[in-house]
Amino acid sequence: MARLVMKFGGTSVADIACIRNVARHVKREVDAGHEVAVVVSAMAGKTNELVGWCREAAALHDAREYDVVVASGEQVTSGLLAIVLEGMGINARSWQGWQLPILTSNAHGSARILEVNGAELVRRFKARGEVAVISGFQGTYKDSGRITTLGRGGSDTSAVAIAAAIQADRCDIYTDVDGVYTTDPRVVAKARRLVKVAFEEMLELASLGAKVLQVRSVELGMVHNVRVFVRSSFEPPQDIDPLSNHPPGTLICDEEEIVEQHVVTGIAFSKDEAQISVRHVPDKPGVAAAIFGPLADSNINVDMIVQNVSADGATTDLTFTVPAADYARARDTIASARSAIGYERLDGATDVAKVSVIGIGMRSHAGVAASAFKALAERNINIRAITTSEIKFSVLIDAAYTELAVRTLHSLYGLDKDQGA
Amino acid sequence: MARLVMKFGGTSVADIACIRNVARHVKREVDAGHEVAVVVSAMAGKTNELVGWCREAAALHDAREYDVVVASGEQVTSGLLAIVLEGMGINARSWQGWQLPILTSNAHGSARILEVNGAELVRRFKARGEVAVISGFQGTYKDSGRITTLGRGGSDTSAVAIAAAIQADRCDIYTDVDGVYTTDPRVVAKARRLVKVAFEEMLELASLGAKVLQVRSVELGMVHNVRVFVRSSFEPPQDIDPLSNHPPGTLICDEEEIVEQHVVTGIAFSKDEAQISVRHVPDKPGVAAAIFGPLADSNINVDMIVQNVSADGATTDLTFTVPAADYARARDTIASARSAIGYERLDGATDVAKVSVIGIGMRSHAGVAASAFKALAERNINIRAITTSEIKFSVLIDAAYTELAVRTLHSLYGLDKDQGA
Repeated sequence: MARLVMKFGGTSVADIACIRNVARHVKREVDAGHEVAVVVSAMAGKTNELVGWCREAAALHDAREYDVVVASGEQVTSGLLAIVLEGMGINARSWQGWQLPILTSNAHGSARILEVNGAELVRRFKARGEVAVISGFQGTYKDSGRITTLGRGGSDTSAVAIAAAIQADRCDIYTDVDGVYTTDPRVVAKARRLVKVAFEEMLELASLGAKVLQVRSVELGMVHNVRVFVRSSFEPPQDIDPLSNHPPGTLICDEEEIVEQHVVTGIAFSKDEAQISVRHVPDKPGVAAAIFGPLADSNINVDMIVQNVSADGATTDLTFTVPAADYARARDTIASARSAIGYERLDGATDVAKVSVIGIGMRSHAGVAASAFKALAERNINIRAITTSEIKFSVLIDAAYTELAVRTLHSLYGLDKDQGA
Repeated sequence: MARLVMKFGGTSVADIACIRNVARHVKREVDAGHEVAVVVSAMAGKTNELVGWCREAAALHDAREYDVVVASGEQVTSGLLAIVLEGMGINARSWQGWQLPILTSNAHGSARILEVNGAELVRRFKARGEVAVISGFQGTYKDSGRITTLGRGGSDTSAVAIAAAIQADRCDIYTDVDGVYTTDPRVVAKARRLVKVAFEEMLELASLGAKVLQVRSVELGMVHNVRVFVRSSFEPPQDIDPLSNHPPGTLICDEEEIVEQHVVTGIAFSKDEAQISVRHVPDKPGVAAAIFGPLADSNINVDMIVQNVSADGATTDLTFTVPAADYARARDTIASARSAIGYERLDGATDVAKVSVIGIGMRSHAGVAASAFKALAERNINIRAITTSEIKFSVLIDAAYTELAVRTLHSLYGLDKDQGA
């Protein structure tokens, strides 16, 4: 017997037929003798409808009232799933964020979970064999007793936080893909599903564009060591993957649980990047702050930052990337601060892409990045900038070469399907 | 300065444009210096959608989960109206039933309000001039902390209960009609809007088919002496009725507040009636119980009951009416209990209608019913059965004569528009 959290997103609960499918997944686990808490999102499209109404009601709306409106979507799904489960003879009840309670900060619209009280859930597992059906995405701010929401994708975070609170053996995230891949299968046909991936790797993969899980939920899983299993809600549930002895999916877990370590786990990429280079800025303290302060004030998200050691000891070049949509605004922001920064010239490009190679094994393997540079050079792909961290490195290249670069690196590191697990 | 509750139903909040119209009504009262609590229903059609999902989820659904699903409709409206009001510069916040709280019985799906805590609302009226926007139709059961709903039309009851709790000067029910009429204007073109009507009269009018207000809300208004004002949400709000010095509408109030008393206030009618007569039943104790017990067990609602004093001292006839839809089932129920009842024959008819004459003035005026019987006889309308109470009498007639009977009585008692106020 295990204790499980099962999380289902909007497309998995889009209508009553879908909710019945979800209930069959739950029944399977209950029949296997497990204690189950289910976390649900709003029915697909509902959150957009509710958000649309808030926007129509007022351009600048009170985030506290926005939360009242938007949280209703999950409330509906939790009640409906409880009804379907009871119709199948399963003892179940719904829980809203304020009932459990799930206590959050008061940052309405993007609140952070502070504390989940899972004691009553555990008591009911034991006393009544009751399945808990919990509205994801929502909580309550203790001091005011008002409804809060966690921001888009927040149900993943709800699920992991609840799993931590009830000390679940695993948190299963049911989604419309069957796991996390070595790269985007639409770009590289030979992309493989990963059987296991370490929390740290998943953080890099998720924030770099593998849109499977909300980043915050992975952080939370890492902190509380909650094993998170990403799987498809559309697969026949009885399938067992011979590689993992699990159903098809990807387990996100502590690196110690990953026995067969690969040097590289996956290749992520992002095409919506723009590059800005600030030329010949004085090489003195405070320059980086003079550049990135105004960008932060303008709410522009800066990603890669590259600053080389000054060659002449007097001036240096500084390169960074921003989302392509913010390119013009970012240039204007820097130009406005020119006197404070004291640069000579501003260069930039919007047709650039970032390709990242991620793997915990890099920590202990030398030469991983060097082999990538060589392989890209052989394909005549020019590298504009490079950044590295403990478990990943990223290169900035011309956007036109993105697919070629990703395929090249995917083969280089032995990630192609026919190269074995 | 007054303290007001303003209640808006589903058609008044059907979309954001409608909600803006509601907000203008609220602003008018706020600008006039009043303290305002607003009670809202779900957007038109939303409750039906939510109920439909519950039914699709399971034929026999848990009423506690039904309440979770259905109460979300009012939650959405309360948040949206608060957003629109704040957008107009009015200090406002939404309240759900569990937040105030509105404590109810645990009869999920048709709960009764037990207690409303209005202290925080009053504190905020005084401290911040804040408008309270409250979800109607919902509350919470104290012992479980779960969401309850009051059943269809429950928002009227919420509004009156809140008005009682905060000792409001008036509870305004905004609806798609502009008040309570002497009878259905579609049947009698000369029907007049009533300026004032006593609680007791409204109870009879409402339960007899004038579908303006939920009966329970009128009862509650009577018990707590909450003046309830029915008015249209589509009228230009600045109109003042010269007769009442109010905007157009009907005030439901204590009879002592009604100075110009009429003998008859209104004529109600109902066409969906069926009549069943049980002939020659033994005139002894327990017979009525033998007939109406099985009907109650079958959940058949019996309306008129007529039993005359036995002529021969041995047997009597007993007539009653049921909703036309239950006619066949009611006959079968009686037939099954024939040996227990011991009747001789069962007669019945479905083409019958009930016409009722209501007026508090009847208490002190003799001959009110007699003049009706005479007028109906002159029109050759046969009376099948008669029942009377303190402030009303009802006749059962052939359905084909309904409109003629209603018009005849409407004129007889001086209710026609051209006969003055």
